[in-house]
Amino acid sequence: MKKIINAPENYVDEMLQGIYAAHGDQVKYVNDDLRCYCTANKKDGKVAIITGGGTGHLPLFLGYVGDGMLDGCGVGGVFQSPSAEQIYNVSKEVEAGAGILYLYGNYTGDIMNFDMAAEMCEMDDIETRSIVGADDVNSNANPDTRRGVAGIFFMYKCAGAKAAQGGTLDEVLAAAQKAKDNTRTVGFALTPCVIPEVGHPNFTLGENEMAMGMGIHGEPGIWNGPIKTADELAEESLNTLLGDMPVAEGEEVCLLINGLGATSVEELYILCNSVRKILDGKGIKVYRTFVGEYATSMEMAGASISICRMADDEMKAQIDMPVKTPFYTQA
Amino acid sequence: MKKIINAPENYVDEMLQGIYAAHGDQVKYVNDDLRCYCTANKKDGKVAIITGGGTGHLPLFLGYVGDGMLDGCGVGGVFQSPSAEQIYNVSKEVEAGAGILYLYGNYTGDIMNFDMAAEMCEMDDIETRSIVGADDVNSNANPDTRRGVAGIFFMYKCAGAKAAQGGTLDEVLAAAQKAKDNTRTVGFALTPCVIPEVGHPNFTLGENEMAMGMGIHGEPGIWNGPIKTADELAEESLNTLLGDMPVAEGEEVCLLINGLGATSVEELYILCNSVRKILDGKGIKVYRTFVGEYATSMEMAGASISICRMADDEMKAQIDMPVKTPFYTQA
Repeated sequence: MKKIINAPENYVDEMLQGIYAAHGDQVKYVNDDLRCYCTANKKDGKVAIITGGGTGHLPLFLGYVGDGMLDGCGVGGVFQSPSAEQIYNVSKEVEAGAGILYLYGNYTGDIMNFDMAAEMCEMDDIETRSIVGADDVNSNANPDTRRGVAGIFFMYKCAGAKAAQGGTLDEVLAAAQKAKDNTRTVGFALTPCVIPEVGHPNFTLGENEMAMGMGIHGEPGIWNGPIKTADELAEESLNTLLGDMPVAEGEEVCLLINGLGATSVEELYILCNSVRKILDGKGIKVYRTFVGEYATSMEMAGASISICRMADDEMKAQIDMPVKTPFYTQA
Repeated sequence: MKKIINAPENYVDEMLQGIYAAHGDQVKYVNDDLRCYCTANKKDGKVAIITGGGTGHLPLFLGYVGDGMLDGCGVGGVFQSPSAEQIYNVSKEVEAGAGILYLYGNYTGDIMNFDMAAEMCEMDDIETRSIVGADDVNSNANPDTRRGVAGIFFMYKCAGAKAAQGGTLDEVLAAAQKAKDNTRTVGFALTPCVIPEVGHPNFTLGENEMAMGMGIHGEPGIWNGPIKTADELAEESLNTLLGDMPVAEGEEVCLLINGLGATSVEELYILCNSVRKILDGKGIKVYRTFVGEYATSMEMAGASISICRMADDEMKAQIDMPVKTPFYTQA
């Protein structure tokens, strides 16, 4: 295991201490619990949006807490859900009089704990709604049981914009739902990653082998085989994406080329070029392109491609709204 | 070699095509040469700042071209200098009536080609000044012959701010010089990287081995040995940094924790926490902290720590000025 760490059991808390040391002007924690992560700039009267999930995916999940996006995050152990109590404590802190949207990835442990937190909020007369990201097409044929991966960024962006504009709880939920309905992701891994407290990879890939559809926790994909070229990966991925969610010639999409951790930014732009050649050939217009690390799996090598169809002008305006978090700034 | 690419010989040009496809609203190329990289938002009357260097270090070098920072970049092959002609062609395009500052890393090939470009500009009556980043303390005892690495970010930031504020060519040079005088970097690698057209690592490290002082092109460091903890690395690095550039109790610095490519952001924040504990213990104040990938070596695992001493309030204002490039936004 080649990592810059101290004791593996302190991985999450030392990471969080580093984040608070670096960005204490923007974020804080409550309840004497480093893992109850909140904005330091609470906006009265605004719908609060709370996310959460396991550590090991930065900037997912906590990195999107900040102006124009989210208000709080329950931080779990590496690849583990935060507890219901942590989510509840974050909820009590960031709730600002207009209710709370829980927006997180479609994983069993997270669903259980967010649902319990919602019940605890209900007893305090705090209104909540919930929606999960489930954009990973290759993870299941049934859209309802798909895992949430990098495409949740578009849900954060649209819901965050709607909340910042003063939308009601149901309007913010609707913005997240519209982004969800129009977003699909395909990802692939070239190397595994190592959970610090485990110390060895939880799966293996041969020297020239990759995995299509691999999940960000190492969930098995749909095939393992020789590494394909960027052009081939773009073609297979877009066939999957557009097969699942057709986009007509002349329609506009946002494109997200996401690195899983160890893959260089140079490669992401090569992949971006491959994707653009295909979209251009189909007459699909790209409204805005995002390239970089948006949802990772620590030092896993690989990438994902997300397409978010621009359903209307309101959605484009939400995508364009400025954002400022310690991990993501859009001006 | 596990990379998402097509033919290795097209690595640089396909990367650039991807960048122009994604960010054509902000950057462009001139002279029908993808490697002559320029801002699309030229500002009349402003001192132009041009950088350049080899590919393989994104966001260095071209990623800092944009509002509030740089105006152009000569893009070389992987780990190779751009040509004098490319730098000259970029110069002709971005020069806006107030002269040009060449600001790049202290590498022999780059110096030769930037100097030749400066002579070509002189024949066109375009005034130029030159300064090189040379912040890598472990690369040489003599400050003049040190390599330039991640600390050049602070030179870009301060010089870019001064130029955006309407500073003269000599004032912009002075801002870069002040940032240079106050910046030091120490880096270390845990794994090598692979040049695409070579196909294998240009050095090897054992399973539990790291290299202190390793350069971003694989230049040998000052020791290879067992991987140290984040706390140990922070202590050794700060001893080196502060031994070379003393910072008194009560003085303020900016801190840059830079990932070399494959190292996870989680680890960078653990390292940030280790560094902050030491600085806090010494009573050195941190004015602003930057954590992420600022100067990489493709998929090399490792990190660097840069300290930039805040010499005065003007420098702090330069650090705080908003920036917008396709790779780096500060609001």
